[in-house]
Amino acid sequence: MHAYRTHTCGQLRADNVGDAVRLSGWVHRKRDHGGVLFIDLRDHYGITQVVADTDSPALPVLDRLRVESVVTIDGVVKDRAAGTTNANLATGDIEVFAREITVQSQAAELPMPVAGEQEYPEDIRLTYRYLDLRRERLHRNIMLRSSVIASIRRRMIEQGFTEFQTPILTASSPEGARDYLVPSRVHPGKFYALPQAPQMFKQLLMVAGFDRYFQIAPCFRDEDARADRSPGEFYQLDFEMSFVTQDDVFNAIEPVLAGVFREFADGRSVTEGGFPRIPYRESMLKYGNDKPDLRNPLVIADVGNHFRGSGFGLFAKIVDGGGFVRAIPAPNTADKSRKFFDDMNDWARGEGFAGLGYATRKGGEWGGPIAKNHGTEGMDRLAAELGLGPDDGIFFAAGKEAEAAKLAGFARTRVGQQLGLIDENKFEFCWIVDFPMFEYDEDAKKVDFSHNPFSMPQGELEALETKDPLDILAWQYDIVCNGVELSSGAIRNHRPDIMYKAFEIAGYTKEQVDENFSGMINAFKFGAPPHGGSAPGIDRIVMLLAGEPNIREVVVFPMNQKAEDLMMNAPAPVSIKQLRELSIRVVGEHAVQATG
Amino acid sequence: MHAYRTHTCGQLRADNVGDAVRLSGWVHRKRDHGGVLFIDLRDHYGITQVVADTDSPALPVLDRLRVESVVTIDGVVKDRAAGTTNANLATGDIEVFAREITVQSQAAELPMPVAGEQEYPEDIRLTYRYLDLRRERLHRNIMLRSSVIASIRRRMIEQGFTEFQTPILTASSPEGARDYLVPSRVHPGKFYALPQAPQMFKQLLMVAGFDRYFQIAPCFRDEDARADRSPGEFYQLDFEMSFVTQDDVFNAIEPVLAGVFREFADGRSVTEGGFPRIPYRESMLKYGNDKPDLRNPLVIADVGNHFRGSGFGLFAKIVDGGGFVRAIPAPNTADKSRKFFDDMNDWARGEGFAGLGYATRKGGEWGGPIAKNHGTEGMDRLAAELGLGPDDGIFFAAGKEAEAAKLAGFARTRVGQQLGLIDENKFEFCWIVDFPMFEYDEDAKKVDFSHNPFSMPQGELEALETKDPLDILAWQYDIVCNGVELSSGAIRNHRPDIMYKAFEIAGYTKEQVDENFSGMINAFKFGAPPHGGSAPGIDRIVMLLAGEPNIREVVVFPMNQKAEDLMMNAPAPVSIKQLRELSIRVVGEHAVQATG
Repeated sequence: MHAYRTHTCGQLRADNVGDAVRLSGWVHRKRDHGGVLFIDLRDHYGITQVVADTDSPALPVLDRLRVESVVTIDGVVKDRAAGTTNANLATGDIEVFAREITVQSQAAELPMPVAGEQEYPEDIRLTYRYLDLRRERLHRNIMLRSSVIASIRRRMIEQGFTEFQTPILTASSPEGARDYLVPSRVHPGKFYALPQAPQMFKQLLMVAGFDRYFQIAPCFRDEDARADRSPGEFYQLDFEMSFVTQDDVFNAIEPVLAGVFREFADGRSVTEGGFPRIPYRESMLKYGNDKPDLRNPLVIADVGNHFRGSGFGLFAKIVDGGGFVRAIPAPNTADKSRKFFDDMNDWARGEGFAGLGYATRKGGEWGGPIAKNHGTEGMDRLAAELGLGPDDGIFFAAGKEAEAAKLAGFARTRVGQQLGLIDENKFEFCWIVDFPMFEYDEDAKKVDFSHNPFSMPQGELEALETKDPLDILAWQYDIVCNGVELSSGAIRNHRPDIMYKAFEIAGYTKEQVDENFSGMINAFKFGAPPHGGSAPGIDRIVMLLAGEPNIREVVVFPMNQKAEDLMMNAPAPVSIKQLRELSIRVVGEHAVQATG
Repeated sequence: MHAYRTHTCGQLRADNVGDAVRLSGWVHRKRDHGGVLFIDLRDHYGITQVVADTDSPALPVLDRLRVESVVTIDGVVKDRAAGTTNANLATGDIEVFAREITVQSQAAELPMPVAGEQEYPEDIRLTYRYLDLRRERLHRNIMLRSSVIASIRRRMIEQGFTEFQTPILTASSPEGARDYLVPSRVHPGKFYALPQAPQMFKQLLMVAGFDRYFQIAPCFRDEDARADRSPGEFYQLDFEMSFVTQDDVFNAIEPVLAGVFREFADGRSVTEGGFPRIPYRESMLKYGNDKPDLRNPLVIADVGNHFRGSGFGLFAKIVDGGGFVRAIPAPNTADKSRKFFDDMNDWARGEGFAGLGYATRKGGEWGGPIAKNHGTEGMDRLAAELGLGPDDGIFFAAGKEAEAAKLAGFARTRVGQQLGLIDENKFEFCWIVDFPMFEYDEDAKKVDFSHNPFSMPQGELEALETKDPLDILAWQYDIVCNGVELSSGAIRNHRPDIMYKAFEIAGYTKEQVDENFSGMINAFKFGAPPHGGSAPGIDRIVMLLAGEPNIREVVVFPMNQKAEDLMMNAPAPVSIKQLRELSIRVVGEHAVQATG
């Protein structure tokens, strides 16, 4: 018989009744029924009920053991008595009568319980992460994460991608977020940097002639924590393809993402067919942002023209001054109180906006000051244009374009939430496309890149040479799911001549470009294929699938919000000897922290 | 038609003849046959011959393009003329007659060629790695690496293992090699360390109740370069299992390794069935080291007893003084000149040993001074014991045990090589087992751990309490293939009581153990399962399969031996601002290197 187990704790069934078995696991729960002890024995695979009575030599041993001790039980499988089976447990038809017990590891008193659902403070949970990970929800999340990543890998390989590991000790990036630095011992005064993303490496892989690269890539940014991003490290599905158009990128990655989400949707629906493609400007109008939650059926409309020279002086003045008025439908709100509408206005003011106007409607009858001033006829026309019914109210966001769009976007989300319009059982994907290549920088009074200078402009060199820069779009795209931006991507600019020209428009000389981006540009001068890709965030994908709003619930050993690993006690002071080897010194009041 | 290609450059066959196609790729070679230009067009997938003659508008464009430029060719597939097909090329039955050409990227003059086999200095190859990677051998090695890793992952998952990503920003290890440090911005004066291996994390995953963990894990050691190890980072197949004995670990990983090697063996044979298990002491005797190359059929024997009080005074004296004499067979050396044997002796002296004795034999006739002194009868007895025939010579290594073993091991390898006995078409695996737990430290005059203090001693607490420490073996094992140590592994000591006792034998107090290893020991106090694992080196596996002795040939973007990335220019000076944010300063003569 095996030293530790003949079966796992999730394996025994009714047809094992009578078998002599050996199980090993943690003592999950103990219940003493007067001379009979019931133990839930837990391992990675499940829970099996173990019984010991006064006939069993295991009884006294189990009796004095704390929960979470690890034991090996020799016993015989028995049918559970009628009425005591447990349908919630895969092994719920049987129990194991304990004959012998070996204690593998005695548990001391626990700083936090494993069984049960009790909430515990995060610092306790992170300090004793190995206990927290024993709990059902976290164990399930981490297993989900592993399964998701394995599924992504399998699907990427099926799509003809090859995984490569790019360096983790590399060079500091000329721009972007803050790098983590690693002092070099061999080259005093010089530093490696941890990669914020393998962007340059993946493009160089294309230049090197590999056709379809991917990597579940660790990325590092020394940024302060956010709920959806760990301080320190995070993972992305980094990928890049050669000889492709934007459509090819979409066609390659859509089945991977849709497939993974469908595999782990657990009853939730996933966008069928190709993901909708929404031009950036349309998204800013209809959803008030560039990461729309399409589970929310509400669509914002531009209604400024209705108010031009109208009886509602405020909106008329905004529109005449070049401003915008955006309408957010509030369907089936005939029964909502005045307070519902006023609260929304108060919320908008609380968020720092001028306020959210509204018109109520009940059985076709308009209410509220905007409707009163604008008049029934005008309001009816507006409602007809928006396709609204006789019980649908309207909110209004007005102001300069960016502000009106932003408020309308927030209001759309809030109205959708308040009215219960957001279907939580859906994963709704879309692409945001056609980002503008350039924008006008009001502060610097000049044209600058709006997003990524390294994307290929639509129309390539000809567009740069002939079009108004502010009309040029980029082959750049975001993947969005349920209002969460999973990643940005682009068809890259692989042509030095086009790159110099694009930078020239943004006010940079050829010399400045060469100085800052020589590595990439020089590589492109030895024959570069057209290429493009993206890098969906793994942590965000798992958070969506697990329904967890906090990234620390889907990472096995996360840091806390202060970028500390409480379990491992990192970061920590190091020895003077270590610093000396690296030719660095800690400065200021903290210098004394270095030890021996 | 697709913007860049209807087919890859490895795809077209005879049955495509007549098709209008579009191909994109690099101009690999150009051959001008007087008005007809032949182009080898290359992409990731293969090479296709493209032809342009004076009828083709592509001719003048191709004519002036440098090789390695990237082009898109529109053309028609034609049969190659009889006698001009190329059986070495998958597309060798056809060629594409070019009708149109689009230049995607013009190549400048190259610092190194891509076509051909010419050797180039490593600094050029690493600086222009994206060019070197286009060359056939490196491209094939890197693709092999990816395929090997994907195969390992698939096989590990099939064996019930789950992959987890453990942190890369973590704590400095209390021992082992030198850590790479990462200064913390948020916690001035404190440092993260990059993991030398996820050893603690994988053990904590077992404590957390996950049963079978693996990871293709990046590991970091700030060590100077060796041929088989990159400075900086390397990858291992890190794995760990709960509730297992040593046999379980072997049974889990043998099919994975044998399977992977068989998959990529390309005609070479792989150990059939279970891998041989060789106790450490036996390996030191028979092979002179603990990583035997079993492709070499030679086996060392201890023959000291033959010389005790014998006519050969030198060996007799060594044996009587407690030393050892080891014999290395030199089969079928009857025809070898005296020089062959003397050269071997010279080689041994050159390596710093006292010398390598020998006896020659031809048709049963002994030769050489040892045989002369020892006498025919004694030599015949010795040969009979070793199972040697009438034309087999013998080399002798004598001295203190460790030295005799080491020389014998070196000689075994060299004799095997010189006699062509090592079959290069084999992968011969074995386990080295039963490492001693403790050894006597001659310098410190005390018992100390011989390898890993955290392995479980065989016999557990009872052995520690009752046996001579130097007789206690550990549940510790190495995987060796063709003389290359792929990894060490162990059944871990998961019991604080046994750990304290083992450290006590090596002279450490409980307080010292708690101070240095509190993280692990504390975790074990809340219920730890018996567990064990190992971590075969990925780079070494790929080197073996690729037949490459240098790790830089199997890593996509390696550093050079001075731990520099010549392509990315890392490490590099950083700005004063960056250092100030991290509360560190560069000291000494290098301080001025920090920029602006």
